[in-house]
Amino acid sequence: MSVRIGILGYGNLGRGVEMAVNAAEDLELVGVFSRRDPSKVKIASEGVKVYSADALANMQKDIDVLVICGGSATDLPKMTPAYAKDYNVVDSFDTHARIPEHFKNVDEAAKAAGKTAVISVGWDPGMFSVNRLYSHAILPNGKAYTFWGRGVSQGHSDAIRRIEGVKDARQYTVPVESALEAVRSGSNPELTTRQKHTRECYVVAEEGADLARIEKEIKTMPNYFDEYDTTVNFISEEELLKNHAGLPHGGSVIVSGSTNEGKTKHVIEYKLKLDSNPEFTGSVLAAYARAVAKLNKEGNIGCKTAFDIAPAYLCPEEGDFLRAHFL
Amino acid sequence: MSVRIGILGYGNLGRGVEMAVNAAEDLELVGVFSRRDPSKVKIASEGVKVYSADALANMQKDIDVLVICGGSATDLPKMTPAYAKDYNVVDSFDTHARIPEHFKNVDEAAKAAGKTAVISVGWDPGMFSVNRLYSHAILPNGKAYTFWGRGVSQGHSDAIRRIEGVKDARQYTVPVESALEAVRSGSNPELTTRQKHTRECYVVAEEGADLARIEKEIKTMPNYFDEYDTTVNFISEEELLKNHAGLPHGGSVIVSGSTNEGKTKHVIEYKLKLDSNPEFTGSVLAAYARAVAKLNKEGNIGCKTAFDIAPAYLCPEEGDFLRAHFL
Repeated sequence: MSVRIGILGYGNLGRGVEMAVNAAEDLELVGVFSRRDPSKVKIASEGVKVYSADALANMQKDIDVLVICGGSATDLPKMTPAYAKDYNVVDSFDTHARIPEHFKNVDEAAKAAGKTAVISVGWDPGMFSVNRLYSHAILPNGKAYTFWGRGVSQGHSDAIRRIEGVKDARQYTVPVESALEAVRSGSNPELTTRQKHTRECYVVAEEGADLARIEKEIKTMPNYFDEYDTTVNFISEEELLKNHAGLPHGGSVIVSGSTNEGKTKHVIEYKLKLDSNPEFTGSVLAAYARAVAKLNKEGNIGCKTAFDIAPAYLCPEEGDFLRAHFL
Repeated sequence: MSVRIGILGYGNLGRGVEMAVNAAEDLELVGVFSRRDPSKVKIASEGVKVYSADALANMQKDIDVLVICGGSATDLPKMTPAYAKDYNVVDSFDTHARIPEHFKNVDEAAKAAGKTAVISVGWDPGMFSVNRLYSHAILPNGKAYTFWGRGVSQGHSDAIRRIEGVKDARQYTVPVESALEAVRSGSNPELTTRQKHTRECYVVAEEGADLARIEKEIKTMPNYFDEYDTTVNFISEEELLKNHAGLPHGGSVIVSGSTNEGKTKHVIEYKLKLDSNPEFTGSVLAAYARAVAKLNKEGNIGCKTAFDIAPAYLCPEEGDFLRAHFL
């Protein structure tokens, strides 16, 4: 029997989850739920209904797992604990510093309701975290380095768009190749923020805007750009749409550690090259939705992260098949 | 309280497990067990006793997990099911084709005795398998490529040593760089055995041996070399000991798949660069020994593989700590 999935929120990530659910034979999309007027939300799936988010008040019997595709800043801290009272839920909460608090809130709600939740899945947090953890278990003295990119940072792109005179913008986070190579060599370098990544900005300015001022405002923006070597390229709107429409991303987790009292070195790298960040993230969420349904059936309730879920739970196939094909 | 570990078999792998157990604060080495005369086995750990393997008949109360470091061809198929009747066990059984049968035998023995077993851990099978599985769950249409090396294949080195006139030998398995690059590009190439790896042999010949014949025998050896481009280098014993004493290994699992009905590509790579194959493998076994002890305490008995064990079980720290540091 299929796992019946609801998607709450239909932005880039919701569309990515939709693709993954539709591509999986054992997952069935029951509905897309939106805080917008449902009649104005056009989804890709034929024969699947768009509901107002309010409809979730009465659909507990129709949905096995609700995948919540909201923002980490204000949406998920409220939505995930609230919906965990009625549904098994999955989210991609990615504000690392607030994960302990979010975990506690979701865990309390899910346990009280007999539901299962998994938070903070995707690739970072998510698959990158899993690889940091496995590497830590194997090489407890290892030093972990995380590099992001080359890829579009939506948060940084938004920050540029808020500057006066900017019409549109795209920001690429780019790992510094020499830093990557130093880490891969196992030399355990100490790297500053500036030494690990650079930031490349493509900006469409309003007509007549002061380009020098915009460039300066970007490069000196606290937290976002001031600690990085940043390049700013002014381009036309046509060029932005033509060459920078996608949302590619990726990166590497590299752990370099040793055995034999430091005499023997080992380097573990997990690397992603994604042509679409939200489509890949959506695929991870769909796999964890499957896991959540299985866990709940087994009576394993409360909040989980990727650390608490055995890999086999993510797959539709049985153990025999998995051992024969992937072990 | 520490997890009390016994190591059965004290070759390169047993020594690797010993290093990992001694480096972990929550693991305690109770004893090394050998089928050789214990008085002739000198171990690295001070204050730890070497026992005859026969002593395991009566040490059930002293050992929480027995790590079995035997060969996959003849040792482990017998030893792991036999010892699973008395102990929680871990092994690194790596004959892929015989895993279903081995799993069944170990599962029956462990379940009947209320013990927990994990088989086939290490890096391949083991960490490579886990990465093949996660990637399959996320990108079900993905194509997985496994490359090994550059590293010493002990099986191939042994095969060369059995040729008449060969005193010693070391064989390196080397992935073909252009094949790696083609796979990393996401182009999903079809690759023959010959196109994926080459084999590099360093051979010390007996004085007066017929080098041309040895080279021909190596290059035409069925299964081991005939399907590969093989190079044979004759070197002195001194050079072998000086430059080829280590057992480095590694490789990559690369999965290339797509979303959005094939229109969007993604590439996932997990890569290892290990200065010592047995020390890294031993570290993986030690981490899974910790997991086995926890699972058995929870009443989760029977045979497991890396697919069935959540990553957090491999770590000594609690969930709060892991979420704060690795998520």
